[in-house]
Amino acid sequence: MAITIDGKRLRGDFDAYSAIGATENEGLHRLALSDTDREVRDRFVADLEAAGLAVWVDELGNVFGRRPGRNDDAPPVLIGSHLDSQPNGGRFDGQLGVLVALETLRAFDDEGIETDRPVEIVNWTNEEGSRFQPSMMGSGAFAGLFDTDEMLGVADRNGVTVGEELERIGYAGDVRCGPRDVSAFLELHVEQGPTLDEHGVPIGVVDGVFGLHWLRVTIHGEANHAGPTPMHARADALLAAADAIHEIGTLPGRLSTDAVTTVGETEIAPNSINVIPERATFTIDVRSNDPAVLDRAMNQAVAEVSAACERHGTEFEIEKLHRTRPMEFTPRIVEAFANATEAAGVAHERLVSGAGHDAQHLHTVTDAGMLFVPSVGGKTHTESEFTEWEDCVAGTEVFANATLDLATE
Amino acid sequence: MAITIDGKRLRGDFDAYSAIGATENEGLHRLALSDTDREVRDRFVADLEAAGLAVWVDELGNVFGRRPGRNDDAPPVLIGSHLDSQPNGGRFDGQLGVLVALETLRAFDDEGIETDRPVEIVNWTNEEGSRFQPSMMGSGAFAGLFDTDEMLGVADRNGVTVGEELERIGYAGDVRCGPRDVSAFLELHVEQGPTLDEHGVPIGVVDGVFGLHWLRVTIHGEANHAGPTPMHARADALLAAADAIHEIGTLPGRLSTDAVTTVGETEIAPNSINVIPERATFTIDVRSNDPAVLDRAMNQAVAEVSAACERHGTEFEIEKLHRTRPMEFTPRIVEAFANATEAAGVAHERLVSGAGHDAQHLHTVTDAGMLFVPSVGGKTHTESEFTEWEDCVAGTEVFANATLDLATE
Repeated sequence: MAITIDGKRLRGDFDAYSAIGATENEGLHRLALSDTDREVRDRFVADLEAAGLAVWVDELGNVFGRRPGRNDDAPPVLIGSHLDSQPNGGRFDGQLGVLVALETLRAFDDEGIETDRPVEIVNWTNEEGSRFQPSMMGSGAFAGLFDTDEMLGVADRNGVTVGEELERIGYAGDVRCGPRDVSAFLELHVEQGPTLDEHGVPIGVVDGVFGLHWLRVTIHGEANHAGPTPMHARADALLAAADAIHEIGTLPGRLSTDAVTTVGETEIAPNSINVIPERATFTIDVRSNDPAVLDRAMNQAVAEVSAACERHGTEFEIEKLHRTRPMEFTPRIVEAFANATEAAGVAHERLVSGAGHDAQHLHTVTDAGMLFVPSVGGKTHTESEFTEWEDCVAGTEVFANATLDLATE
Repeated sequence: MAITIDGKRLRGDFDAYSAIGATENEGLHRLALSDTDREVRDRFVADLEAAGLAVWVDELGNVFGRRPGRNDDAPPVLIGSHLDSQPNGGRFDGQLGVLVALETLRAFDDEGIETDRPVEIVNWTNEEGSRFQPSMMGSGAFAGLFDTDEMLGVADRNGVTVGEELERIGYAGDVRCGPRDVSAFLELHVEQGPTLDEHGVPIGVVDGVFGLHWLRVTIHGEANHAGPTPMHARADALLAAADAIHEIGTLPGRLSTDAVTTVGETEIAPNSINVIPERATFTIDVRSNDPAVLDRAMNQAVAEVSAACERHGTEFEIEKLHRTRPMEFTPRIVEAFANATEAAGVAHERLVSGAGHDAQHLHTVTDAGMLFVPSVGGKTHTESEFTEWEDCVAGTEVFANATLDLATE
């Protein structure tokens, strides 16, 4: 038995939700726990209640809605994503996954479906991490990977904490945030890369997520006047950094076709037009699906920094910020998505996610899997993020059927 | 006839002035028109008055003191430098030149010297340009190169204007700031480069000042997620900038032994660890004593930016910020310094300044010249800026004698 979703209703939700925090260029600016996040949460809670779900909010502001099952004591199937956005980000990242989950439950109601297991929908707090670090905060605390009290104390750049903002916007719930018995977690998301779009394939079934290393490099040179200091007498921290950044950009080509490296943050001091930089700081983000490549890339990156410092008479320190190993989603969930796609007669491709997702955290405590729909041009974290509407609808249909399958014994 | 200066008195002044805005690491943090700038100006005015000088302040806060000449209607010889410092800068840059001028006048008094021409001492407002741009503001307006009213309206990063700060600290004078008849301007300064120190020579007689080009480059790429975006699908503005910065650093070696290039300011956006930079901005400072080299260096720098953007699929804009041609100080002033050095039996070297100085502005309206004393290790614009005290004393003696020579018909 296959269920059909209501694409028009989904589109109505999508447009209404996208208006909350909309930017001038059809993007979305809805930082975690901001006023617009409150507004979209209020709308979400109203929609869950209108759908007859039991609704609750946990200590970290994760919002849940529950549709009972025939066997209501069985561990639920959990579906959802996140409603917060990047600064001037896109409308699809996260939001689409939450609305697809909502449409799934409505489609169940339309067809009078009773599942064996209860099905719960969730909006995870602060997936993006743009305002409060770490990212994927709500799902990480739910999975017991982060300490909830510690997360409540995390402050943004203005010193305002997660706990204060949750109180202010009315989403400091009283339900404990931590691991509990869940049968499976399913998440639909936009690919955020170009592969599906380039191949003209509407559905991606996600095998796993790249591992990553995050480092911060600080190079120490010597400040001096840009005029009277001859080139040979300089220890220019930026020249050393520029050489290292160049080499780090060539590493994937040297190591593996699947690896990527990015230097996303830089800062120099004193940052004055006529002063030789005495300090340059930059981050390195290395990702691969192969743990050996990941380690080689990181070691090689450090070696390149060291060689550049040697050439420029500068010194350096490395701070290890974060590390995750490549992971694989649960085969039975991956299979359920693949089967639902085939049943729908839609082409799909198996792929590995370069981006981190809430589903990754959930996978540490339950069976988890993800479904991707294409990102046009691979664009994401930008206002021009886009997915063709027919792909959104196809993805929703597959997602709803996989959910139904997994909620049925 | 040669005069002798009082090294001990000079040292007392130097230590007392250095205490005003002193940093923990024996540096100086005395930004233009700050409270510490007010404090050091108050001390300077008191010292001028104690020395029996007629004191006045012009509209832009330049502070003058006048010692009459036998022929008091003759255009004066003007001597001095600046008392403002870089942020966390050194004690010698500017301050030494003002105190050497003060010691010169005191030495004249000690020996009962009457000069033919009047001698005036000056502290130029905002030479550094760290807080208010342009740098060398007071001398530039005095020389008629900058419009005084426009300079009074210049705001710092907090929107506070030069005019408001002059009022607040009590240095908004009523004497017009603009060109008037001056016989010569002499300035002693630390070299701010390593040449004298490397050669073990205590005195530099300055032939002129390097010309410079200042550019700002903005590179436009495409923001995207650092994970799912394969390397081939990226237009990384920082990778293009890093390549260009590397090449710009190699230009002096390719073009001329006297040229220097510096990238001192950089900024990237969105500056997030897991987002490919969509914009990278950086400045280029190119200097040489040869106008042809200067033009070649600038053209080559732009060509390198263009080539780097071509390689990385990014685009760029260039903004021309500032340009000065190489200049030569007035031969009779350069000769007076050289003669006084030889008369003192001290070794000296002729050199060209890589840094800009107030004397450069004054040279557009009068005869001008400069004397350098060594910077240990070439360090400047940093707390560790240092000049051996015996070199300060030797420089003062030469400076006082050259001033005497030029103030005597």
